Amino acid sequence: MFETSEMELAIGIDLGGTNARVALVDGAGKVAQAVKVKLDDRTPAAVVELLGVQVEALAAGNALPVGVGMAGQILGGSGVVSVAPNLGWRDVPFGALLAKRLGARVSLMNDVGAAAFGEAHAGAARGEPHALVVFVGTGVGSGLILNGRLYTGAMGVAGEFGHVKVVPGGRRCGCGEQGCLEAYVSGKNLTARIAERLDGGAQSALSPGSTAGDLEKAALASDGLAKELWEEASSLLALSLANLVTVLNPRRVILGGGVLLGCPALKEAVKASVFDYALGVSRVNLELLDAQLGDDAGVVGAALQALHVRHPAEGR
Amino acid sequence: MFETSEMELAIGIDLGGTNARVALVDGAGKVAQAVKVKLDDRTPAAVVELLGVQVEALAAGNALPVGVGMAGQILGGSGVVSVAPNLGWRDVPFGALLAKRLGARVSLMNDVGAAAFGEAHAGAARGEPHALVVFVGTGVGSGLILNGRLYTGAMGVAGEFGHVKVVPGGRRCGCGEQGCLEAYVSGKNLTARIAERLDGGAQSALSPGSTAGDLEKAALASDGLAKELWEEASSLLALSLANLVTVLNPRRVILGGGVLLGCPALKEAVKASVFDYALGVSRVNLELLDAQLGDDAGVVGAALQALHVRHPAEGR
Repeated sequence: MFETSEMELAIGIDLGGTNARVALVDGAGKVAQAVKVKLDDRTPAAVVELLGVQVEALAAGNALPVGVGMAGQILGGSGVVSVAPNLGWRDVPFGALLAKRLGARVSLMNDVGAAAFGEAHAGAARGEPHALVVFVGTGVGSGLILNGRLYTGAMGVAGEFGHVKVVPGGRRCGCGEQGCLEAYVSGKNLTARIAERLDGGAQSALSPGSTAGDLEKAALASDGLAKELWEEASSLLALSLANLVTVLNPRRVILGGGVLLGCPALKEAVKASVFDYALGVSRVNLELLDAQLGDDAGVVGAALQALHVRHPAEGR
Repeated sequence: MFETSEMELAIGIDLGGTNARVALVDGAGKVAQAVKVKLDDRTPAAVVELLGVQVEALAAGNALPVGVGMAGQILGGSGVVSVAPNLGWRDVPFGALLAKRLGARVSLMNDVGAAAFGEAHAGAARGEPHALVVFVGTGVGSGLILNGRLYTGAMGVAGEFGHVKVVPGGRRCGCGEQGCLEAYVSGKNLTARIAERLDGGAQSALSPGSTAGDLEKAALASDGLAKELWEEASSLLALSLANLVTVLNPRRVILGGGVLLGCPALKEAVKASVFDYALGVSRVNLELLDAQLGDDAGVVGAALQALHVRHPAEGR
């Protein structure tokens, strides 16, 4: 595991499709100061300028390293955003643009990777070199902490747990492919599935705008449609996660994200079923824990990753 | 990636349930000399003595490091065999016993991990830091080469790809659990499934002792039962492998083992379907290649791993 001093500071940015959160974070992962800004103009130039102003205010004249976690696929350590659907970006050299604006070093990464890194170094997986961090929220993603480092794969896109195929040829996912886990269990897709089923004539206490939290409440009250969708989400999540445990043999699995936060019964059911499905030897000493950093995970992880990159001995 | 000199030598052992192969291997992964011995007595003490004599003969008075790959679950770097079903061993400190007999350092690992390490450093994945090596033979297993190193997980049992669950509550596997990939696609299980289906009254050109190779020939000749089992094996393997590609984003996938070697059409079908199922960004630049070392992979990998452990800078 890498070490940073509390004295070190970095800027962490969590760049969503609607808002950006910008924070001054110390080397221990503590948020010293944070602001949230709305993205009125989502063009790369406007976002660079908006973030540039916020970073300068927080950095107060210091040339601090900057880490950005954003929803999208980032190619390797290149700083190039391959696809960011929520921002409508494709092949944008965002890391270089922001670095030029600030005259500072910028590390760009996937938002779930950033949050996983935050949980790994300052949250529920702290001190554990073998951990999977899984977030189920609007989307589904994971960060793989292997040998104490965030594993990013050959092209920098490792951890796309939301896009493992659970129903070959199944439901169309936001990524354009079919049958992805995310298409069955993310918050956005659960809401869409409820609406589709009601449209198809299903009888239920649910309504077209119902959330994952509403779904869980109705399922616990024995609503038929809700139970069906809840049980499907639970078993698909548990099976996919257990298979990852079987192959990667982590010591800890950290569960977070809005859907799991809003559906405590679902979270507990998934935890129990992972133990049913994962191979015996792979779950010796396995712990499944809740994420600890909440909404701070992204900015903390992005900032720590930016500090981390300064330690060349660690490499990537 | 680690570097060894051709001048360095080590002993590699591939310990099966019936035979052991013992080889003198150089640092480049070349087999200088090899012998195959039959295990008449499978007790740990007898196996230690049998291997001890062979190692001494090959080492010719030199204290060479020894690497052993064996079918079974090895706990971490402890040298303890947790379970080795083919030998009937459970909780045997085999690494320590062999080290004591030889007065040499012994590295003990899973046989598929050893073969994967061989392919990674001297075979089809040479020079590639992000590779998955998958073997489908009597059993099914994999080795994960991540950041240039064999990834072994928190308890040393990472890579148990044969035991991901593909049919929850499905067919009983040799490991004792249900619905494992291995229970549907390994050579042993394909033969057993043919016999079960014939027993159940299925009409087919196959017979109870038919092998995976026979199955492929009959499937290509449009035998109904053979086609059904062949297609199921193909899609389960491809889907499971594609999901691993989606999460780990390797650059190369190496396919080996008796079943894939004996069923070239199956191997090509799996390769093609991995591209259908794996997430788009995760298969940019992905290559699927055949294993190159054949039966030597195990002894080569075990020997190189033993040499590797001598390089403390690399760590594990």
